[in-house]
Formats: sequence, structure tokens, C-alpha cells
Amino acid sequence: MPKISDKGRQMPASPIRKLVPYADQAKKRGVKVYHLNIGQPDIPTPQSMIDAMHKLDIKVIEYSHSAGILSYRESMCKYYAKHGIEVHPDEIIVTAGASEAILFAVQSCLNPGDEIIIPEPFYANYNGFATSAGVKVKPIISDIDSGFALPPIAEFEKAITPSTKAIMVCNPNNPTGYLYTKEELETLREIVLKHDLFLFADEVYREFCYDGTTHFSVLNLEGLENHVVLFDSVSKRYSACGVRVGAMISRNKEVMQTAMKFAQARLSPPSLGQIASQAAMATPDSYFTEVIEEYKARRDTVVKAMNQIPGVLCPNPKGAFYVTARLPIDNSDKFCQWLLESFDYEKQTVMLAPATGFYSTPGAGTNEVRISYVLNVGDLEQSIKVLGEALKVYPGRTI
Amino acid sequence: MPKISDKGRQMPASPIRKLVPYADQAKKRGVKVYHLNIGQPDIPTPQSMIDAMHKLDIKVIEYSHSAGILSYRESMCKYYAKHGIEVHPDEIIVTAGASEAILFAVQSCLNPGDEIIIPEPFYANYNGFATSAGVKVKPIISDIDSGFALPPIAEFEKAITPSTKAIMVCNPNNPTGYLYTKEELETLREIVLKHDLFLFADEVYREFCYDGTTHFSVLNLEGLENHVVLFDSVSKRYSACGVRVGAMISRNKEVMQTAMKFAQARLSPPSLGQIASQAAMATPDSYFTEVIEEYKARRDTVVKAMNQIPGVLCPNPKGAFYVTARLPIDNSDKFCQWLLESFDYEKQTVMLAPATGFYSTPGAGTNEVRISYVLNVGDLEQSIKVLGEALKVYPGRTI
Repeated sequence: MPKISDKGRQMPASPIRKLVPYADQAKKRGVKVYHLNIGQPDIPTPQSMIDAMHKLDIKVIEYSHSAGILSYRESMCKYYAKHGIEVHPDEIIVTAGASEAILFAVQSCLNPGDEIIIPEPFYANYNGFATSAGVKVKPIISDIDSGFALPPIAEFEKAITPSTKAIMVCNPNNPTGYLYTKEELETLREIVLKHDLFLFADEVYREFCYDGTTHFSVLNLEGLENHVVLFDSVSKRYSACGVRVGAMISRNKEVMQTAMKFAQARLSPPSLGQIASQAAMATPDSYFTEVIEEYKARRDTVVKAMNQIPGVLCPNPKGAFYVTARLPIDNSDKFCQWLLESFDYEKQTVMLAPATGFYSTPGAGTNEVRISYVLNVGDLEQSIKVLGEALKVYPGRTI
Repeated sequence: MPKISDKGRQMPASPIRKLVPYADQAKKRGVKVYHLNIGQPDIPTPQSMIDAMHKLDIKVIEYSHSAGILSYRESMCKYYAKHGIEVHPDEIIVTAGASEAILFAVQSCLNPGDEIIIPEPFYANYNGFATSAGVKVKPIISDIDSGFALPPIAEFEKAITPSTKAIMVCNPNNPTGYLYTKEELETLREIVLKHDLFLFADEVYREFCYDGTTHFSVLNLEGLENHVVLFDSVSKRYSACGVRVGAMISRNKEVMQTAMKFAQARLSPPSLGQIASQAAMATPDSYFTEVIEEYKARRDTVVKAMNQIPGVLCPNPKGAFYVTARLPIDNSDKFCQWLLESFDYEKQTVMLAPATGFYSTPGAGTNEVRISYVLNVGDLEQSIKVLGEALKVYPGRTI
């Protein structure tokens, strides 16, 4: 029997997927599981996207251009212009979700063995893309006690080695919900210029900013035209994760020409998803006003209820739809499994994402969990109540 | 300005894309270009797939399971059963086209530096996937004079080194149209077992077999349960390249578990495409009868007309919708560019794929081109006539 690859063995398994069998068991026991673990929003997809499929008027579902349908890229440019960002169609490669965009960028810009600095906690799948490309993630800690702000510049300087080729940020952040300020991003610019690094930015949650804050895109950082590579996606923006339409955007011509070779090898991003995504551009602003209001109400519900539980620290993030909270527990992997395997409160329990999966520093995040507020306010209130009851009786509680 | 990666520099550019600007110029000069260079069929997509979009009844376009929608995988199993192939849903990972399936398999099974033997000429993008994974392609020549049959076993033995981890075949073949017989595949089995290799097979053209031949799948080779990884796709089968729905199939549990980690990192294959592809299963058999009859008529047209041109050798392939033909020319890259840049016959010319892009042995294929017969019979007759006229006057002709 032939052996699988070392890379296959090293490829990290999804920390949340490991819990799925336990959730299934809980459901079999008749326990209702509140899913606070997922990034799949429950918000309806804009009707314009569904309508585009209902009205689909083609005879052949053809490949699109490897960089994406031109009219869709043009409509994206209008979208960015509305957000004060100037982008040209030839600076965009449409991808199968932001996932593919990240893979293209990492493969185009970094050699195997090169290092990429990422403030942690970070989106767990970045580890997968790094392993896939043979690249090493160098984490620097964003501290929960400072609300997960950008680590001080000195921490970046300490992490930089001759192998460092890029810094990556996610803004607003998954899993912390932290929204970087313009000033924080300008700090990043200085580091990037000083050490001639690429700056990768995942801005898929751009719209989801609360409390009157606004999002500042790395594409508007002056002097970084050759350094910045942006990852974007319609998945969360339009609650349409299944269309698998993202984008890699850069003004660095050499990077884009190189990424196009990877794009051509896989022929085309999904055509149906692109047609739906182009239709999404007609979504009225009121859609976002309503969605943002809804998410804000949910965030307020979660943050308030969480901070009322003894021993819990839950920052009040300004963006995305996640919070990462500190719990009075010994080990978040054990706790999340215990919630599904051994606990229920009036036949209800919660599924959380252990934060350990969002850190690559060993031992970090062991008393933190990520909560996605993709349930309605009523369900969120109930699920945080259930979590509070669980923390009263969990054998590994620390208070 | 930060430097791009070595891998990015090594990533092969598409040999056909290089010709696109010349085709655009020809069109600007008012010359009609017959596209014999592409793999995008002109056959209508089955109405069931379009209807599935027209009737789309969902509120949220959600992620699917990372391995694909279960009901779609179940319907695939029925499709394979109909073709005499037993497959279970957990032996299938639905992917974004066969492209992603190949990437998952190469990354799961081979380490950077490992070697994969592929009979050449082969589908040009295999080179891209190999470069992407840091894997080395070892070509062995399938000879046009033997109609591109499987090379003799001695050629495989000569190519095998301690770094060889896999053999890959495409059956029916792109770019040659060659259909491997059961006997040829059993020869492959012996080599695979003797050297404990993976056997990768791209069978996306399974349906397209002519002259009463039938396709034999590597999944039906006995004793290779742990060795075979199959790549499949709905793109060509249903003339629906834009849905980006393929599959990686294997009975090797360790390979599938490993590939699932890559699948989870990119979250989900396209949901809309999967819904359309599941609907495609209702396509009546008469669809294929008609399509195959149409392709056969096209093949007969091309092969007959080509072999009437002095100095041309065009084998009569049994499958897919490609032929690779030898022309009396000095250099196929130059010739294909010249056709677009400097030639027209009554304001018409043809765009061909130089076969050099399908070989990785330097210097091979320089007098061969690939013709895709994805135009109607009338256009094919006219385009081969134009090609014949071109060969009379091409300055680099060799007869």
C-alpha cells in the first residue's frame, strides 16, 4: 500500500470538525444543540442573487475567463469605488472563495520555507493554506486583555527573520471581531516598507462594522501598491457562502501575472456563482443597514450576557460576527467536547469553537472559545444562559 | 518591492493563452478565426441543469459539506453503478472541477521532490499542478505512429526511480483522444503493484467513446483498491464547464481522510453547481446517444480531411473530442502564431493548440498540434480546408 505524503500528515485537521461526531451524539440523545461554532450566517441571501438564477438565460454553462467574468469584475470596481477604493478590472482575479485567493497569493509570493507573520488568534484555515504551500506561520500574540488590538511594533520586529516574506491580517478579524484602526494599519505600513514585505489582508467582513466605526482598507495605504494583496469574498457579505466567489486583488503587476498562471491552471472560477454575485451588486443599501443592525443587536446580547457570567472576559468587538472570550476553564478543547458529550441544561447544550484552533503558539487559547453570533437574539440569549449553567458544573472549571 | 516566489516564476504559462493576443489581432483585421484550440464544447447543457437553477428553492446559498452535498454524492454513486462501477458516498470528495481533485490528490499522496510518471503528450495543466505541489513529472513518450497507445512496460520500468510515487493516465485521453483498452490498463496494474505506486486516472471523457468501444475504468482494476485515485468532472460530460464540479474518488481510506483536510481548508465546493449537477443525473440516455453521434461525425470529418492534406498524419482516436496530428512544419508554436498573425484564406484562419504544450520532453511535439472538434461539421470542414491552404504557403513547411 503506497504511503501518503508528509504534507498530508502535517495538514492540520479542522479543530471544529473534530467535535461534529459529539454534536451528532448529543442530537441522538434528544439534546438541542445551539450552534455558536459556525461561520455560516442565517441571514437570507439577497433576493437579487436567487432571482438571477431564476432568470438564468444561457444555453451552455461555460467556463468564464480565468480571472473571472469581465462584467463582474467591472461591477466589483464600482463596489470598491463606493467604498472609496480605486481598483481596476485587471487588478482582480475572481477565485473560488477567499480560500483560493489566499492559496494563489501564498504560492505566488512565498517559497516553501518562507515565513509569514500573522497576529494570533487567526482564522484556523490559514494554517492549512500555509501547510499546503510549505510556508511557516510565525504567530505574534494579540492579547485578549487589550481587546485583541494589533500587537506592538516591537513584537513584529522580534518575529522578523531573513525568511520573513509577508505579514497577514484579517480586518475585521475572525475570530476576535477586532477592527483595526487606520493608525494601526499605518504602523503596519512602516514595518512592511522597512523590511520590504508583502502585506496580505483578508477583508471579507468589511461591511460589518458597529458603533459608528468605519473600515479602512489596506488598499488605501499609500506607498504600498507593490506590497498589498487583498482577499475578498461575497460569502459573508451577501450570506452566500455556497456560491464560492472570492477575489485576489493587487496592484503589483508581477504578482497578478504570476497568480494568473495558477488561475489558468484551474481554468475558471464558478460561473453560476459569478452570475449571482454580479446580480448581488444591485442589493439596496437598506439590506446592509438591516443586517448590520441585526448583527449589532446580537453582538450586544452576547457580550452583555457573557460578561455577566462569573469569571468570563468577553471583549466588545467592533466588527465581523465573532467574539473570542476567556472562560474560567482548564482546557477549551475538553470543555467544548464535554458540552456535547456529557452536559445538557433542560435538554439543551451549545457547540463552541475552541480557541486553541486559532492559535499556533502551543498552549495558547486553552481558556478561550470563539462564539459566532449567527443565531437570532432569542436563541443567543438562551444559548449563553445554557453556557452559564454549564460553567457552574463543568468539572474542569477554575473558579 | 518584494520578490515573487521561485514557484511563481517556474509555474508554466498556458501555451494556448500566449496565442490569444494574436487571435484578437486577427479578429481586428476582420479575419474570422475558427477556434479548434479550446476544450469548451458548443453542445447545449442539459435542460435539467438550467431548470434546476430556474426552480432554485432556497433562502440562503449555504456552504455544502466539504466533501459535497450528500444527496449529490449518492446520486453520483447511482451514476457509477450504471457504468458498472461500485462507489460509496464516503469514497467521493466533490471538488471545484477535476482541477481541484488533482491538486488534492497530488498534495495528499506526493511529497515535494517526488516523481509522477505521465505518458506524454498529456493535458498541459498537469504541469501546473505538479509545479504547484513541487512534484516532478517524468514523461514517457506515447508515439503518434502507434496512435498514442500506452508506452511499452519497459519504458515505465526505465522511468521508475526511488522517488517515483505515482503514474497518471487520462482515459480517454486529452490531447490525443486515445482510449486505453482493458489489457493496457491491466499492464499498468502490474507495474503499479510491483512498485507500490499510486495510479491516478483522469476519466472526465468516460462517455465519449466511438466505434462501438467501451470505457474501462481503473476503479474496476482488481487489487488496486489502495492505489487508485480517480478524477472526474461534469464539465465535459454535460457541457457544463462553468459549474466547476468535479470529484476525487478513492477506496484508500487514508488518502481520503487526508484529502478531506485539504477539502475542509477550502470549506466547500460550489453549491449552485452541485445542485445543477445533481439535476443533470436525470438527463435521458438519448442526450448522450445524440451527443456521441454528433462528436463521432465531427471526428470522422476531421480525421478524413486532415489525412487528405499532403504530409499530415492524423490518427483516428476512439474517444474524447481531440485529435493530435503531425503536420509538415518546422515548429508548431511558430506555425500556430503565424496562422493568426500573418495568414488568412478568404478572410478566414484557424487557431490550433501547439502540441509542445502537451509534452514535457524538450523538443517533443514541435511538429504536432491538437485539434478540438467542438465546432459543427460544416465549420470543421471549412476550418480544415483553411488549414490545408495554410500548409501550402507556410514559410516553415517541410514538404
